[in-house]
Amino acid sequence: MFEALKNWDRWSDADQLGALNHITPDCRVKAAHLVATGETISLSHDLATQPMPEDPRPVEHHMLASGDARDSNGIPGYEAARDHLALDMHGLFTTHVDALSHMFVRGEMFGGRPASEVRSDGARFNTVMAMAEGVVGRGVLLDIPRARDTSFFTPAEVVTIDDLEAAEESEHVRVGRGDILLVMWGREARRKATQGFDGFSGLHAECLPWLQEREVSVLGSDGISDPMPFVGTPDWPFPVHQIGITAMGLHLIDNVALQKLGNRCAQLGTWEFMFSMGPLRITKGTGSPVNPIAIL
Amino acid sequence: MFEALKNWDRWSDADQLGALNHITPDCRVKAAHLVATGETISLSHDLATQPMPEDPRPVEHHMLASGDARDSNGIPGYEAARDHLALDMHGLFTTHVDALSHMFVRGEMFGGRPASEVRSDGARFNTVMAMAEGVVGRGVLLDIPRARDTSFFTPAEVVTIDDLEAAEESEHVRVGRGDILLVMWGREARRKATQGFDGFSGLHAECLPWLQEREVSVLGSDGISDPMPFVGTPDWPFPVHQIGITAMGLHLIDNVALQKLGNRCAQLGTWEFMFSMGPLRITKGTGSPVNPIAIL
Amino acid sequence: MFEALKNWDRWSDADQLGALNHITPDCRVKAAHLVATGETISLSHDLATQPMPEDPRPVEHHMLASGDARDSNGIPGYEAARDHLALDMHGLFTTHVDALSHMFVRGEMFGGRPASEVRSDGARFNTVMAMAEGVVGRGVLLDIPRARDTSFFTPAEVVTIDDLEAAEESEHVRVGRGDILLVMWGREARRKATQGFDGFSGLHAECLPWLQEREVSVLGSDGISDPMPFVGTPDWPFPVHQIGITAMGLHLIDNVALQKLGNRCAQLGTWEFMFSMGPLRITKGTGSPVNPIAIL
Amino acid sequence: MFEALKNWDRWSDADQLGALNHITPDCRVKAAHLVATGETISLSHDLATQPMPEDPRPVEHHMLASGDARDSNGIPGYEAARDHLALDMHGLFTTHVDALSHMFVRGEMFGGRPASEVRSDGARFNTVMAMAEGVVGRGVLLDIPRARDTSFFTPAEVVTIDDLEAAEESEHVRVGRGDILLVMWGREARRKATQGFDGFSGLHAECLPWLQEREVSVLGSDGISDPMPFVGTPDWPFPVHQIGITAMGLHLIDNVALQKLGNRCAQLGTWEFMFSMGPLRITKGTGSPVNPIAIL
Repeated sequence: MFEALKNWDRWSDADQLGALNHITPDCRVKAAHLVATGETISLSHDLATQPMPEDPRPVEHHMLASGDARDSNGIPGYEAARDHLALDMHGLFTTHVDALSHMFVRGEMFGGRPASEVRSDGARFNTVMAMAEGVVGRGVLLDIPRARDTSFFTPAEVVTIDDLEAAEESEHVRVGRGDILLVMWGREARRKATQGFDGFSGLHAECLPWLQEREVSVLGSDGISDPMPFVGTPDWPFPVHQIGITAMGLHLIDNVALQKLGNRCAQLGTWEFMFSMGPLRITKGTGSPVNPIAIL
Repeated sequence: MFEALKNWDRWSDADQLGALNHITPDCRVKAAHLVATGETISLSHDLATQPMPEDPRPVEHHMLASGDARDSNGIPGYEAARDHLALDMHGLFTTHVDALSHMFVRGEMFGGRPASEVRSDGARFNTVMAMAEGVVGRGVLLDIPRARDTSFFTPAEVVTIDDLEAAEESEHVRVGRGDILLVMWGREARRKATQGFDGFSGLHAECLPWLQEREVSVLGSDGISDPMPFVGTPDWPFPVHQIGITAMGLHLIDNVALQKLGNRCAQLGTWEFMFSMGPLRITKGTGSPVNPIAIL
Repeated sequence: MFEALKNWDRWSDADQLGALNHITPDCRVKAAHLVATGETISLSHDLATQPMPEDPRPVEHHMLASGDARDSNGIPGYEAARDHLALDMHGLFTTHVDALSHMFVRGEMFGGRPASEVRSDGARFNTVMAMAEGVVGRGVLLDIPRARDTSFFTPAEVVTIDDLEAAEESEHVRVGRGDILLVMWGREARRKATQGFDGFSGLHAECLPWLQEREVSVLGSDGISDPMPFVGTPDWPFPVHQIGITAMGLHLIDNVALQKLGNRCAQLGTWEFMFSMGPLRITKGTGSPVNPIAIL
Repeated sequence: MFEALKNWDRWSDADQLGALNHITPDCRVKAAHLVATGETISLSHDLATQPMPEDPRPVEHHMLASGDARDSNGIPGYEAARDHLALDMHGLFTTHVDALSHMFVRGEMFGGRPASEVRSDGARFNTVMAMAEGVVGRGVLLDIPRARDTSFFTPAEVVTIDDLEAAEESEHVRVGRGDILLVMWGREARRKATQGFDGFSGLHAECLPWLQEREVSVLGSDGISDPMPFVGTPDWPFPVHQIGITAMGLHLIDNVALQKLGNRCAQLGTWEFMFSMGPLRITKGTGSPVNPIAIL
């Protein structure tokens, strides 16, 4: 499947955008026309500063000057607080986007670039700068549990093409060219039910050709798109990451907060909206924390 | 002026949004209708990882696993790069938004809350979470040097009400309720001309009542909105920060990259556009790095 | 007890050394004369970079340039690796020393200085700089489990004066003026036995007057000197920290690795040795990671 | 010279200690007997938290809880301050020791190990753990400016074998087997005189065979042992680092604070002393910040 889905020369041999090429200006104009109520909904979790099972290395937020040192700048009359943020970009909780340099298959990145191009002083190709000008387009939420009349999928239940298409049908929407597709399996409901963390549902590898065919530009999920713990073929533990990112050039948004959006879409009876995301311009980065916004 | 512009009880005594209250859903719907070409332009600088005069403490971007350790996760077949980002949120280069907890005047924040509510373990009020659901609305760029037929203002030249209104006239736009106002004095052109850093132009304090009257929701500038080095009244070195944030509840976006947007607006002959920004959800933060996106 | 053990004016009202005043040059000369075999034993754990129950926020060790970027300095022919270390100074695993600014009792530090003198931009008094010139003197290890003919104390068993004196007797040593006293209850053996973490044994508060009387200069333990979880008087959960540091001015070394030293002392039949420790010169620090060395 | 000085198989082909093999227990016993006055002198600079020309990336010292959040642990009655330290290990100001994994020559480390053994997840060989049990022995300070009757060497003046031997003669000391040799060219005096930073004096490459012959175990300097900016052979910009560390297995201590020690040695008329240093146990580290202690 890896070979069959390779987009390495699809756009050009210098291409570093991958499936982002599917989003055209026209997609954005149409997406803007979807704005109806003027509401915005954040698709990011609060950054967690305490360790959790799914987030053993949380964000560090340090005050450099709190109220007690508001004079520390030394400018008479000027009183300010300052702070510092440090975080690992990837993982299972922080809402972040994966650049194409995040993944390798047998030592190669998207475009056939060697792993050695991601050095300890940063990535030289396939960086998060592919999204530097922002990712704006039509967002489509496929609320899988709703279509299946359940609250959530368990980690043992995998999202199939059937599930995706059942959600399309139920929502009267069709995923198409340039869409930012958000697949919800019910992480937040699952966490509430289990009061703990026992893994993620996610997309079966069979969905990858479907995503390619539909010309999706970006894929996000309330999990990490891949089921976890993984099941499947040896050496392909996370096929959506391995094949989606590396072969197809598909940027993934992990740990998207979708519950609130799902609830509101159900109320409004529409699961398409304008989507806007501005990844930080980390010139050699393999990803970025993000707060994507749905504009309804 | 501080007393005259106070919005501490304007919306409610529990209010932590300040001038963000001016953005209504209706503003966002109208902003979406401005999208014409479908282009997006980032308003953020690349995060700088090398020290510069205006940025003595640059961003730290560390690889946790580069290509040479792509096996470090221990999962057979899974090859990934991971990285770490650390940054001070405020300062003179990183594009960031100031929360209302960033500034104090004589020990008080917006709403009259005491400085002691910003503790060394984080801010308890007036945090960046006021913008957690995103800041989306009409962006208006006032390109001051263009209206004044020059390439940039020097740090000694201050932007006055006359300058703002001259730009409005020249651009056939009128700043109004809920707008995200971006005031450009030509930082990037100035840096190119001087090949160095000698300070910022910015808004004269007389602009503050004008901003209040126009019901601007957010103010951004290619500098820090305040001129620097400062001139003016003792103990009021940065009046736009001190009065704008603390009295008026005006969120400021500092170090906005405006040159590219300015060039494109001039080509298109329009200086209004849809603006979208998703600050990171730092629950106790006094600001956030951002990559705001203009959607033309 | 807090009032009775106060050393706030014992040496001078400007004193920030506390019990370190007990170490005189003469103590160091005598300590040097204890060196017999010329062996050195480190009293520090390896810095942990993976989360553990007793260390949920481990040390971060990041390579800035590994072998793959050994050219990143830009100097022809010069090939180097560089790294970065970040750590929280206190906690239950990293071997560290507590400065007198680490603890407060009802808002006061050692010397009666107010808590507000430890600001978010650093401590202004009672910093780790009290030990800037190093801590060198006679180290004495009291191996409590050995004296009690057991492998370790459980968290429910507390070290009493009787235990200390039993160890003195068994080891033919008497703790005295200026000594760096290391009290071992068997943390490493306990961890091995339980294959987990269930707390620490430590000194009963009744030992504090004994430590004062013996004129100990520094106290270390394989735990944190205090038992944990704590038992005792309300509002005095960690009396050795609260009274020892704040009233007595006793610097504490937490999480000292004592097993190897204990084994060797038993072989040699002597539990006194030269002790040397060089805390990092963190000018406003409330502690420092350390690697104390026993020289036998 | 690189080939001639190679110690790669001198002790064993698995050796990772290099010249540290020269320090024997006997050296330490003799060193302890040098202790006469019982004074200790720190050989470390204060960690710098503000950028300087020679230290563009200073140490970060962040309070996690200052006095204003002394209750943040949540334990009734327990009031504590906590802090966080982050630093780059190498560079031109922080007093630190270089592990043998810090340097490569044409892709090889000490022992002929390939650069790829220092990965982005840490060094696998030649780490700072070679010094985990501490470095204790006879320290010898060669005060070169004093022997040459000047206050400091300029960056253009290089320390030669003649200079080393002149200092030996003047100080009535002979550098020998196992010594920790500290070579002072007067950095602190130079900084005072120039009120700025214009580089370092250091040892001429001709000193390397001399160091080998004398069987020095560790070399430190108030600079970085190498002159800087460098002069010399193309592709060998820093021969003391390149040949000393990589061929000879000589651990280097950079940026040692020697002025105070130099002054005191001159008063006492002796330049030998007991030296003790406990590098942090960074299991995969290429160096460590240190506070070495001279015990006189």
